[in-house]
Amino acid sequence: MAGEYCRLFLNDDKPHEACGVFGIYAPGQDVARITYYGLYALQHRGQESAGIAVSDGNRIICRKGMGLVGEVFTEDILEKLQGSIALGHVRYTTAGDSIIENAEPLNFYYRDGMIAIGHNGSLTNSAELRRELEDAGAVFQSTADSELIVSLIVRAGAKDLVSGILQAMEKIEGSYSLVMLTEKRMFGIRDPYGMRPLCVGRLQDGYVLASESCALDTVGAQFIRDIEPGEVVIIDEHGITSLRPHKPHRKALCAFEFVYFARPDSVIDGLSVQKARYALGRQLAKEYPLDGDMVIPVPDSGVSSALSYAAERGLPFSEGLMKNRYVGRTFIRPAQTIRELGVRLKLNPIKEIVSGKRVIMIDDSIVRGTTSGKIVQMIREAGAREVHLLVSSPPVTHSCYYGIDTSSRGELIAASHCLEEICQHIGADSLNYLSLPGLHAALAPCQPDELCDACFCGNYPI
Amino acid sequence: MAGEYCRLFLNDDKPHEACGVFGIYAPGQDVARITYYGLYALQHRGQESAGIAVSDGNRIICRKGMGLVGEVFTEDILEKLQGSIALGHVRYTTAGDSIIENAEPLNFYYRDGMIAIGHNGSLTNSAELRRELEDAGAVFQSTADSELIVSLIVRAGAKDLVSGILQAMEKIEGSYSLVMLTEKRMFGIRDPYGMRPLCVGRLQDGYVLASESCALDTVGAQFIRDIEPGEVVIIDEHGITSLRPHKPHRKALCAFEFVYFARPDSVIDGLSVQKARYALGRQLAKEYPLDGDMVIPVPDSGVSSALSYAAERGLPFSEGLMKNRYVGRTFIRPAQTIRELGVRLKLNPIKEIVSGKRVIMIDDSIVRGTTSGKIVQMIREAGAREVHLLVSSPPVTHSCYYGIDTSSRGELIAASHCLEEICQHIGADSLNYLSLPGLHAALAPCQPDELCDACFCGNYPI
Amino acid sequence: MAGEYCRLFLNDDKPHEACGVFGIYAPGQDVARITYYGLYALQHRGQESAGIAVSDGNRIICRKGMGLVGEVFTEDILEKLQGSIALGHVRYTTAGDSIIENAEPLNFYYRDGMIAIGHNGSLTNSAELRRELEDAGAVFQSTADSELIVSLIVRAGAKDLVSGILQAMEKIEGSYSLVMLTEKRMFGIRDPYGMRPLCVGRLQDGYVLASESCALDTVGAQFIRDIEPGEVVIIDEHGITSLRPHKPHRKALCAFEFVYFARPDSVIDGLSVQKARYALGRQLAKEYPLDGDMVIPVPDSGVSSALSYAAERGLPFSEGLMKNRYVGRTFIRPAQTIRELGVRLKLNPIKEIVSGKRVIMIDDSIVRGTTSGKIVQMIREAGAREVHLLVSSPPVTHSCYYGIDTSSRGELIAASHCLEEICQHIGADSLNYLSLPGLHAALAPCQPDELCDACFCGNYPI
Amino acid sequence: MAGEYCRLFLNDDKPHEACGVFGIYAPGQDVARITYYGLYALQHRGQESAGIAVSDGNRIICRKGMGLVGEVFTEDILEKLQGSIALGHVRYTTAGDSIIENAEPLNFYYRDGMIAIGHNGSLTNSAELRRELEDAGAVFQSTADSELIVSLIVRAGAKDLVSGILQAMEKIEGSYSLVMLTEKRMFGIRDPYGMRPLCVGRLQDGYVLASESCALDTVGAQFIRDIEPGEVVIIDEHGITSLRPHKPHRKALCAFEFVYFARPDSVIDGLSVQKARYALGRQLAKEYPLDGDMVIPVPDSGVSSALSYAAERGLPFSEGLMKNRYVGRTFIRPAQTIRELGVRLKLNPIKEIVSGKRVIMIDDSIVRGTTSGKIVQMIREAGAREVHLLVSSPPVTHSCYYGIDTSSRGELIAASHCLEEICQHIGADSLNYLSLPGLHAALAPCQPDELCDACFCGNYPI
Repeated sequence: MAGEYCRLFLNDDKPHEACGVFGIYAPGQDVARITYYGLYALQHRGQESAGIAVSDGNRIICRKGMGLVGEVFTEDILEKLQGSIALGHVRYTTAGDSIIENAEPLNFYYRDGMIAIGHNGSLTNSAELRRELEDAGAVFQSTADSELIVSLIVRAGAKDLVSGILQAMEKIEGSYSLVMLTEKRMFGIRDPYGMRPLCVGRLQDGYVLASESCALDTVGAQFIRDIEPGEVVIIDEHGITSLRPHKPHRKALCAFEFVYFARPDSVIDGLSVQKARYALGRQLAKEYPLDGDMVIPVPDSGVSSALSYAAERGLPFSEGLMKNRYVGRTFIRPAQTIRELGVRLKLNPIKEIVSGKRVIMIDDSIVRGTTSGKIVQMIREAGAREVHLLVSSPPVTHSCYYGIDTSSRGELIAASHCLEEICQHIGADSLNYLSLPGLHAALAPCQPDELCDACFCGNYPI
Repeated sequence: MAGEYCRLFLNDDKPHEACGVFGIYAPGQDVARITYYGLYALQHRGQESAGIAVSDGNRIICRKGMGLVGEVFTEDILEKLQGSIALGHVRYTTAGDSIIENAEPLNFYYRDGMIAIGHNGSLTNSAELRRELEDAGAVFQSTADSELIVSLIVRAGAKDLVSGILQAMEKIEGSYSLVMLTEKRMFGIRDPYGMRPLCVGRLQDGYVLASESCALDTVGAQFIRDIEPGEVVIIDEHGITSLRPHKPHRKALCAFEFVYFARPDSVIDGLSVQKARYALGRQLAKEYPLDGDMVIPVPDSGVSSALSYAAERGLPFSEGLMKNRYVGRTFIRPAQTIRELGVRLKLNPIKEIVSGKRVIMIDDSIVRGTTSGKIVQMIREAGAREVHLLVSSPPVTHSCYYGIDTSSRGELIAASHCLEEICQHIGADSLNYLSLPGLHAALAPCQPDELCDACFCGNYPI
Repeated sequence: MAGEYCRLFLNDDKPHEACGVFGIYAPGQDVARITYYGLYALQHRGQESAGIAVSDGNRIICRKGMGLVGEVFTEDILEKLQGSIALGHVRYTTAGDSIIENAEPLNFYYRDGMIAIGHNGSLTNSAELRRELEDAGAVFQSTADSELIVSLIVRAGAKDLVSGILQAMEKIEGSYSLVMLTEKRMFGIRDPYGMRPLCVGRLQDGYVLASESCALDTVGAQFIRDIEPGEVVIIDEHGITSLRPHKPHRKALCAFEFVYFARPDSVIDGLSVQKARYALGRQLAKEYPLDGDMVIPVPDSGVSSALSYAAERGLPFSEGLMKNRYVGRTFIRPAQTIRELGVRLKLNPIKEIVSGKRVIMIDDSIVRGTTSGKIVQMIREAGAREVHLLVSSPPVTHSCYYGIDTSSRGELIAASHCLEEICQHIGADSLNYLSLPGLHAALAPCQPDELCDACFCGNYPI
Repeated sequence: MAGEYCRLFLNDDKPHEACGVFGIYAPGQDVARITYYGLYALQHRGQESAGIAVSDGNRIICRKGMGLVGEVFTEDILEKLQGSIALGHVRYTTAGDSIIENAEPLNFYYRDGMIAIGHNGSLTNSAELRRELEDAGAVFQSTADSELIVSLIVRAGAKDLVSGILQAMEKIEGSYSLVMLTEKRMFGIRDPYGMRPLCVGRLQDGYVLASESCALDTVGAQFIRDIEPGEVVIIDEHGITSLRPHKPHRKALCAFEFVYFARPDSVIDGLSVQKARYALGRQLAKEYPLDGDMVIPVPDSGVSSALSYAAERGLPFSEGLMKNRYVGRTFIRPAQTIRELGVRLKLNPIKEIVSGKRVIMIDDSIVRGTTSGKIVQMIREAGAREVHLLVSSPPVTHSCYYGIDTSSRGELIAASHCLEEICQHIGADSLNYLSLPGLHAALAPCQPDELCDACFCGNYPI
């Protein structure tokens, strides 16, 4: 039941990223502590659990818990995580219970020692692989893909761990950006479609792997490059080694990383996320050059595209909705009178700004359509004359099978309703989405065929 | 020592507000739960402790703890707080230890029953009053002004509580916005200068008091009016009664409420905080019509004035600094390498945005000057050609004695350094502050003589 | 509701002691840490809250919390409690809620500095004194006697603290063993009847005060002597000073300290508790020389008298009931099937021992008679042929007003039922209590008129 | 470091039991709650972690944590554990870190569904089996035998789970009493030597499995019988089915269950633990009919044999050492002065009892000899004229490989020192151990060849 109230606040009608990963190989440095701060920078990618595994060269130990990085780790815990290689993970569970068994990293004993793993992504053939392994007698302690991947790597009958990794990569399908540790080595692996981001940087004499470049900035590491789709990077005392075992598929980086997930100060596969968002807003202005008294964003994710939309249109930009920065997870059941207020606990319209105005409101995406209507209604009650909603990404019409929690297809409002119906449902004076070609144009340095846009058009790369 | 790392993150070189108060008189409603959400909306006014006192008509009970509202209260605790009147408080300690003894509300037994109190402000003659009471044999369990105020009210030898309140108000000097409960009544009291805000609203058949109107919005209450300077409001079964015992002093609402403290969606004494901030940015543009390639804010508090500055100047506004939304309080000691990164744990420049640009950066205030230099340096390292810093309030040259933690005068950089020295210290290409007349002009519906601007000019109202 | 299940386990039908106090004056030693272990030794006197106050010569700080000493204090907290004088307290609340406001020590600011207090006992005229002080304008933050006592001391208008103490002692009535600290001094005070124990010991160059001598043993202090009834002991840099301001009343040490409260390894006012309990059992054997196959105790408190009874009677002693050592406080609601098991969660009869036997069972006291019946029934179900219950203290017929939770008179089974009725209620084959003259004889080195036996006979000393 | 202080208190120089298990099959009852109380009764078998797994017929969920049962489980957690079959486990880790990864039950997904397991015992061929499985590609997430056992069961290639269990039992060697759940069935398994106890009882329409019969009593279940060595019991909707796949080895129940581990109110393999302990004391009296003024036990485990020794010898029994009932786990570093007190924090001699006396002190066992010397010294310092130490079990000369933490052989004082040396080391006037034939005689209904006495003589059954 607590979960219900908790969701009241999370229920922001956005897709949810599954995970963030961070790795560091830096003998002589306080790797667990650096990982802690790296996870802080990746906290937006997952808030449900956090974990850090550390190798001291002989043994890997792991500590994890439910909650934010700052809630899970104390000085006392960090002081026990001494070593020279570390792996961190933050998770937002896409499915199932919010339980500690799903928290990562997972830490394994195998034939040649120990192996820890942190995973961002989702396998599409996990059920088959799982059955196959179980038929061979394997047992699992969770439903996590990571446990499956490690079993495949180890079980492959390969002569060494690297061969095992390469063989496993031939079997698994779907999206995966992995960081793995053994006692003496760190591995960074990105799936052949490059669906989820992963980059590598240098920190003094060591190396850092991270889901996003903002985490490199935070710990003071220099960005080197993105891990390439299908690439395996091995970092150890000999430095960094790269394997590209597979001939490349088409690349298919998740377009939602630019639309919503990634932090604006990250650069992914050569494209600045902030610049991408500005481009989305400008493209929106080209497609829908509306007139109005002001442009307001749905904070925080609609701000960038609203700014560039307003600039492109020459209209005033204003903050018409205030977001409570302290509303995080709460497990307190609202009083009856308050429950009806719903989204207002998190967002409050500023009457003095929107009253009497024709408002163009920009949001980055609509998934189920549950909150947009409430926001439009709030803006109206605050006195706006008109509310025109523009969405800086195309309608989400198809579920994601690659690790993003876009809800099942039945819940996707654009899967079963036309534009007019959605507009009416939301109660806006007008509603328009960015076109798919417009999305491609805005993310231009990325070729359309290098992005996964399956949730917008059903064109699944795998 | 933990405190030190904690401060690393709080150390944003801003003045710190001391407290937020919330009260509700609403028999039949779940007053503690509504207070919980009211405190959520006021969390920006104090993050160190939170507390709720509830009267069931016969007895007042109180629960409080260190940390955010969402950390202190659980369903289990809230369920025990049954009653028809409640009082909530969030505190940021201005001085001394971060200890539970300083948390409010305080709850007292006195001659005629019980009384609970929550206080926002700071008395200027507390030492004298304390000595006087102690000489008469009083004992105190904290150094809080609230304990002193209750002793004065009760001790006054007055025939009833209301008389006691009026007599106490003749003795105490300084800033105070108080909410008090007895078993059957709620009181809202604002000092004769109206230094700290306090307003009243209606919720169905009940009444709500709050430091800011945004808390009324959050719980679904209708704003009625601000409590007037020197006014005592009594709410009980007979409705709302108002006493204005003192002939008015000059009003002296703290100007920093508009500059930095209050939430933009609040309206204080008739002035929208958001509108005030936009006006500050426009005034800044009039005073310093700089040329540059872009205007960027120091997030979050510089955003509003940067937006209006850019609009007024016809320059592009851009987000050049990314703030980590999850960096709250942490007690983890940074690794040596990270410690040097300082403010970068919280703010990260977006290279792709500022590189090669002449940047006009807007901040709302500078107190000690400790972080501005680091931010300017970050922006430069990210490739900016020029960095011009504009501050949307005048230099802080005098300490505040009315409850704001502006640091002692020796720490105020503008108290002992001229503009050029500060600019050099910060390393900006130019530095300019809004003028004091400019501040007054921007906050225009408020008359200059209705605001306290002592920290800018030393013109202390008391 | 949790409280209900909690009580299920506490409900051992014993009177409950209110508190234990410990003080140490030992510059140069880790006084908080020594106090922690001192409280460990006194934990049997109170399990609801624990607290420690420490003075560093300039300032007193205090930390306390709900629960056992080992639950409340961590290394982190203890490390902050640096100083040269300390005061510790464990509390079992006799009345009212189990709330932190009732936890001690209490720490006050007064005219001349600070004062911390820990109290064991209960005033009989607190309501009058409270009213008097409140009429003079005093406010209180709890209903604790300690707050009242400090107000009286400080308010007395005396020229110094010691005079204040002596004047306050003329006003307060009831039982009190107090330890108080100022910044530079420690005080030990015992009420003129000496109702609750308090002794002093030496630890290297310092002094220790404690409710029981077992705490001196635990911290390695040498027992010096008991504080005398009505005595005030002052410990400071000049050593130990004693004041005996009042001409002595009759002494009236609580007889239940010997019967049940105190630890057997303590010596109180010259009498070894263990020896006293053996004497009670021997006296019981003289009064009721029963025949049976074995003597068994109700553990743990009945063990000593059962041993001596068996030895005196020449009968075999056996452990026929096993007590679960880990059943402490639990807040788990038992399943329906288990709830009916009641006391069995804590005590389990050993069938193999009692089956077919005529059992003489010894308990130290019966207060409400709620558990004795269940125990007798368990023993019977385990196969005992006969169960004869002997109680090593007289029937409790009167409530205690001096700080012991003997329940209200209406709940005392012996207040309203004759021996036969009680025996029938309990379902024993026979039931006998030690006579009051027998109690006096057993506690012999203590004169009958030096003990408080009011709960057995209504002869209240005050 | 915390661990060090923690051990100070645990360091009682006793062997430590590894685990307790409890299972219940009772559709319609609150099985998790009953398991909670069952674990309470088994808490003496393990205090480091506690866990409960529950099946609702479709799915098994598991919750566990570090600490006592009452610390790990709250109402909130228990309410989520709904189902009709449950398995509970308490653990005292014999080796390695005190970490959550070692806590049980473990919960697995396998080919045909889910399986949860709780284990008491220790395999002797786990390293070989582990290597074998790892060579076949298995990964493990802990070093627990349980993980290994489940892998063997599932991997065996058997046609169903029961066949898998029987095949696995042919491979594993060592001691094991297991409770396992699948979604619809409960299994109880005891190793072919019957080294660790396991019994079954009836609770209304359901069945209960437990390490000791005292847990059946606590939850109100009727004892049916002990599980036989090598027996597999299957409990499901068809009732209870028994398999005895192996021809019996010699039985080898751990003798220490009677000497020290088990609760006195349990009956194991037909022998009452309490009666066994009394017999040990009587046997000791036959072997060493010492003269002295009194017999005292080292509490709590020496009490039973001291009682029977004293009775047999016709000497007075007395409690000369007081044990602090509240000293559990503490993480507080003692002050220097206190650290030297060592065992006195837990045990305090009663001077008034032992002073001037020739004391015969009875303990149940000596492992490393670290605390016996301190206790003897305390008794002497308390004034005893002579201290004769009798131990109611033979010298521990060999390590246990079957799950008991008897320390490595190098630490066993009797492995490398003769009686005279040990006596001198301890400082007693005399020291004597029960003879091995004496042990056998005392545990008489058990045949010598049905007990494991390897730690006394090196005669390892496996």
